[in-house]
Amino acid sequence: MNVIQSIDPSTGRAVDDVATATTPKELDAVVERATAASVPYEAGGRPLRAAVLRAVADGLEARRPEIVALAMRETALPEARLGGELTRTVYQARLFAEVVEDGGFLEATIDHAGETPMGAGPDLRRMLVPLGPVAVFGASNFPLAFSVPGGDTVSALAAGCPVVVKAHDSHPALSRLVFETMVAAIAAAGGPDGLLGLVFGREAGTALVAHPDIKAVGFTGSLTGGRALLDIVNARPDPIPFYGELAGLNPVVVTEGAARARHSEIAAGLVASVTGSAGQLCTKPGLVLVPAGEAGNALVSEAARLIDQASAATLLGSRIATAYEAGTEELRHRAGGMAAAEGGAPSGSGFSVTPRLFEIDSETLQDEPVGECFGPAAVVVRYAPGRAEAVLRSLPASLTGTIHAEADETETVRRLTGVLRPLAGRLLYNGFPTGVLVSWAQHHGGPWPSTNSLHTSVGPYAVRRFLRPVTWQNAPQEVLPEELRDGFAGIPRRVDGRLTAPD
Amino acid sequence: MNVIQSIDPSTGRAVDDVATATTPKELDAVVERATAASVPYEAGGRPLRAAVLRAVADGLEARRPEIVALAMRETALPEARLGGELTRTVYQARLFAEVVEDGGFLEATIDHAGETPMGAGPDLRRMLVPLGPVAVFGASNFPLAFSVPGGDTVSALAAGCPVVVKAHDSHPALSRLVFETMVAAIAAAGGPDGLLGLVFGREAGTALVAHPDIKAVGFTGSLTGGRALLDIVNARPDPIPFYGELAGLNPVVVTEGAARARHSEIAAGLVASVTGSAGQLCTKPGLVLVPAGEAGNALVSEAARLIDQASAATLLGSRIATAYEAGTEELRHRAGGMAAAEGGAPSGSGFSVTPRLFEIDSETLQDEPVGECFGPAAVVVRYAPGRAEAVLRSLPASLTGTIHAEADETETVRRLTGVLRPLAGRLLYNGFPTGVLVSWAQHHGGPWPSTNSLHTSVGPYAVRRFLRPVTWQNAPQEVLPEELRDGFAGIPRRVDGRLTAPD
Repeated sequence: MNVIQSIDPSTGRAVDDVATATTPKELDAVVERATAASVPYEAGGRPLRAAVLRAVADGLEARRPEIVALAMRETALPEARLGGELTRTVYQARLFAEVVEDGGFLEATIDHAGETPMGAGPDLRRMLVPLGPVAVFGASNFPLAFSVPGGDTVSALAAGCPVVVKAHDSHPALSRLVFETMVAAIAAAGGPDGLLGLVFGREAGTALVAHPDIKAVGFTGSLTGGRALLDIVNARPDPIPFYGELAGLNPVVVTEGAARARHSEIAAGLVASVTGSAGQLCTKPGLVLVPAGEAGNALVSEAARLIDQASAATLLGSRIATAYEAGTEELRHRAGGMAAAEGGAPSGSGFSVTPRLFEIDSETLQDEPVGECFGPAAVVVRYAPGRAEAVLRSLPASLTGTIHAEADETETVRRLTGVLRPLAGRLLYNGFPTGVLVSWAQHHGGPWPSTNSLHTSVGPYAVRRFLRPVTWQNAPQEVLPEELRDGFAGIPRRVDGRLTAPD
Repeated sequence: MNVIQSIDPSTGRAVDDVATATTPKELDAVVERATAASVPYEAGGRPLRAAVLRAVADGLEARRPEIVALAMRETALPEARLGGELTRTVYQARLFAEVVEDGGFLEATIDHAGETPMGAGPDLRRMLVPLGPVAVFGASNFPLAFSVPGGDTVSALAAGCPVVVKAHDSHPALSRLVFETMVAAIAAAGGPDGLLGLVFGREAGTALVAHPDIKAVGFTGSLTGGRALLDIVNARPDPIPFYGELAGLNPVVVTEGAARARHSEIAAGLVASVTGSAGQLCTKPGLVLVPAGEAGNALVSEAARLIDQASAATLLGSRIATAYEAGTEELRHRAGGMAAAEGGAPSGSGFSVTPRLFEIDSETLQDEPVGECFGPAAVVVRYAPGRAEAVLRSLPASLTGTIHAEADETETVRRLTGVLRPLAGRLLYNGFPTGVLVSWAQHHGGPWPSTNSLHTSVGPYAVRRFLRPVTWQNAPQEVLPEELRDGFAGIPRRVDGRLTAPD
């Protein structure tokens, strides 16, 4: 029997046996219950979806101390970070309730019957409908905001889809606690039995993605893990949408002007962004382009000084710690055998590692790009005047791209933006990419290695991933969804080509 | 040298050598020119896109007689059908110009900086941007509306993407004529050189899909062809969106009430829909569920009588004709060795075939579903009272699902709709699925075998396939796209969560 244990990252030791790996038979039962929940969940309409999301938010908030304490024990992340993550997770669920009530995401569209240049046209009414049960893979680095109660789950619930979560092995006890909290909240709000399911273990995860009744997958994690699941999806007789947020270098480029004006401030912000959450963020700035010359030297010296002073950090799990040591060894090799700076020595217990900064030559980088190194490490690349764009062009795409520049460098900023845009989903100016606000205008995604460049995994538009259009042609009013009937005015609709606001 | 010949389907003989297959080197040059066109095309903004689309429409209209005549010669489709198709194609290009001007498709979204439950939030501005050069595969059965000047091409141009079309081998001369017409129109409208490219031959098609600078693919064709291209896409280091409209049975279900009230009318509509365009439509109703009993008998007899009277039809090409004969042989076998009806004998010349109707037992159908048979054939399945839903549930998904019912059968219609919705992109009531109006509320797609169930290939929303979101965080106004700047009011935008209509 395959036991799922809860490990304490600060000691590396198992604290608790949380569950046994879900068997194929158990998995089928969970998916069957989710599939059965589709019909009553949809029948409850948008009011039920909003009620479920608000109940989930309230339920999580009510158990805050217990949730944060268990999250700390399973991730070694600090209390303030996890408290903030719970706040964000609760806010996110409530925001999706508002999205459901707004109704714009349905893209309700009506074309009345009438003459067209092609002859008499029928009555056509189009709206987005739920895809069906969605598989969600919890991420290790956000045990709440990208895990059981995270953005994939609540956006799927907002879309009207039941969800089966594959718990991440690095926080199984928290996954179970949060799952039970949510199931109770869903039931109290009148949501159907089976609307949310939870499975444990790697085999259950791969079986879930291949299951014929699963209609989409949300995944946040490594490129290797995501690519393996995508290959399973592609081998299905009916490939389904796979939304993977996989990795990224998240390049930062500092202009000559910014280096001169703000070298200390930029160095401090950079190191905070690289070492926060022990560098275990998919938006961590992994590569920084700094101009050659004095101002750049000052920036790099200050960043090196801060990394030197940084304490050892405890990573989330043994696999991540092992990969970090291997990744920084590779970077050290690329950097000519030495680090530009290294922080405090590891504690020797659990998954403790040292923050590291490397400097790699721009020529060798262009010959062979470096990959993401998950954890508290970053690479500095110095560029000669006018050469930043050439270096950027050699990089793979990322979730983000950041420019530090001064107000009088507009032309440079415009040029750098032009080079970065094809390489990123979010462009930042004079900031750092860690910290992804949940809001309408957010985009968390980008070109490959995001597996689906058209969609975001954060913010209201994330709901779009779990919906597909259906058009009803000459349908009787009584079989149409409420939102497409004549006289309904509660949501934005496009009628005969014109966008109409709700009453 | 691999010569691309223009074949006359009525004789099966080559009339003209149109081109040589595009070499790898030539292909690279075409894609390179398309890539280079991206920047000036985007710089021209929405006004240039709208101007290009209207110029294309005008250019095609101006050469109507020549285009229709050549289309007739290469497809053997009738003049009225091809004239209508050109009208639709021209209308479609003009509609996309309106979509570009409307600007709602950009999903412009602005969240101003301010306090949030998670602390101070930045200024975030999100908008959809073009993916980059798009590969479009022309379809044999719509030499205009789904080919060089078709919906994939004009929606990609509306999105701001250059297009490289792989000409379909069954109408190469028309592809070339239309391409040259469009290139001249684009140039006259101020569009950049290389915005539209054309390649010939199967190898060029597969190389196009694998080309690193191609960012999305639009395909209309067979399941086999689509799946092969999708496999190439999935093997790329950076898989790209593949939009394939591949096939479908397009089931029609006739209720007891409808059979009683309208058996002759339904039979006539059905046979017209099955035999129109020689049955070579992806929305052809390939499977009809008819109730057991007298009214159903009358419907089937009338349909059989009409098929018996139908003339032989000339198919588009030798591969389609061969597949039709094999497909109807398979159906004959499933039908117990005989057809329920067969039309006039083939002419003996070219790709002439006989329309056919088969009757297959509902039990054997549920054991092993039948596939699409492209061409003028359909299958009748009789169902016992209350058994229609069980038969429908055994079918694969399609582009459409159709219900014929009477006004007093609301409960039945609701139940059948519930069963059909997961199986189709468009639901029709008392009509036939052939004839896909280009309009805002249209949806042409569905669950697999449409390769991307979230998107339509017909109508304004088709533009969404070739766009991805980008968010600018704390960007200076002067590097933002015009549509995201303060004070711009020409398009719908969502500002601080509220949808605002244009001035």
